[in-house]
Amino acid sequence: MRDKLIKDINFIVEIDKMKSIYRRTKVINERKNEDDAEHSWHIAVMAMVLHEYSDEEIDLLKTIKMLLVHDLVEIYAGDTFCYDKASNGDKKEREEMAAKKIFGLLEEDKGEEFKTLWEEFEAMETIEARFAASMDRLQPMLNNYNNYGGTWKEYNVTKEEIYKRIEPVKYSSKELWEFVLYMLEDAYNRGYIVKE
Amino acid sequence: MRDKLIKDINFIVEIDKMKSIYRRTKVINERKNEDDAEHSWHIAVMAMVLHEYSDEEIDLLKTIKMLLVHDLVEIYAGDTFCYDKASNGDKKEREEMAAKKIFGLLEEDKGEEFKTLWEEFEAMETIEARFAASMDRLQPMLNNYNNYGGTWKEYNVTKEEIYKRIEPVKYSSKELWEFVLYMLEDAYNRGYIVKE
Repeated sequence: MRDKLIKDINFIVEIDKMKSIYRRTKVINERKNEDDAEHSWHIAVMAMVLHEYSDEEIDLLKTIKMLLVHDLVEIYAGDTFCYDKASNGDKKEREEMAAKKIFGLLEEDKGEEFKTLWEEFEAMETIEARFAASMDRLQPMLNNYNNYGGTWKEYNVTKEEIYKRIEPVKYSSKELWEFVLYMLEDAYNRGYIVKE
Repeated sequence: MRDKLIKDINFIVEIDKMKSIYRRTKVINERKNEDDAEHSWHIAVMAMVLHEYSDEEIDLLKTIKMLLVHDLVEIYAGDTFCYDKASNGDKKEREEMAAKKIFGLLEEDKGEEFKTLWEEFEAMETIEARFAASMDRLQPMLNNYNNYGGTWKEYNVTKEEIYKRIEPVKYSSKELWEFVLYMLEDAYNRGYIVKE
């Protein structure tokens, strides 16, 4: 057996840990928090379903690949709650170190391919990265909406912070942005978002 | 907003239930059973990592799409343990009905696309479907191996049944098959597989 295959198998075994990295968002109508593996699956399927609404045509395979691997760094860096300003301070540094460690398990060329996908996602400069970010941000909002406010209410997140967080959608898809505006205003009117 | 988009969003919300469909396999070194969303994510990443070992070149996007949606029918049909002969008797019928229901939430063309992916996966006739099946079957075996036997030991699964289950790998990849033989013989020697 080639050494490369052994590395690949070790990587596959290591990333099983994504099933135990918990996020703040809860599964709809369940008491349990969702984990990174569940979240990554959900947004990859969302890209399959929603890519037709992208304002510009996107490379769907690249987008799905980014979504599948974008949270792997959290195996070592942990999940950083997006509305927590303090722990977002050193997030970049922690995740850079984690990226070296997780992608370093693979042979150099494959590790580089995966790390590049993560970097493209983080930089949010390509149309695929912006669309991927839109999926990543829309999914927890759909869960919050269907959980009567979820983390918005639990952590007193302001409407302004939510709009800032969901902004990538505005630059990805006119039609999805229209939906977002509808959903957030409706959430506010229903009392799911408690602060302006 | 177009009616189509509303249907897409309803589908995305409905499939959140995949996070609560539990399989028999346990997460490595954890007491919790993995769920369908976690499993689907894991095998999609496995396809990204391992497709280079396929004997014939495969369409990776199609393979990943199949892996992401192949278990959606279990939202209504439930998870059927692969080594449970009794409940596998009416599996096909139960899953056909579930497919109509889940893919029927989408507009006709998109629902048809998703249903066709599921049918291709189930038929296991194309090279992509065989490779996808290989990922689907290898992943729980990696978890069992790393869990000192896992469901093999817990349910007294025979070596013969395991070899039958993992057979798609043999027709997908010479190199992965070599790894499978090594892993299963090692598992047997370590006492992780208790029956011939």
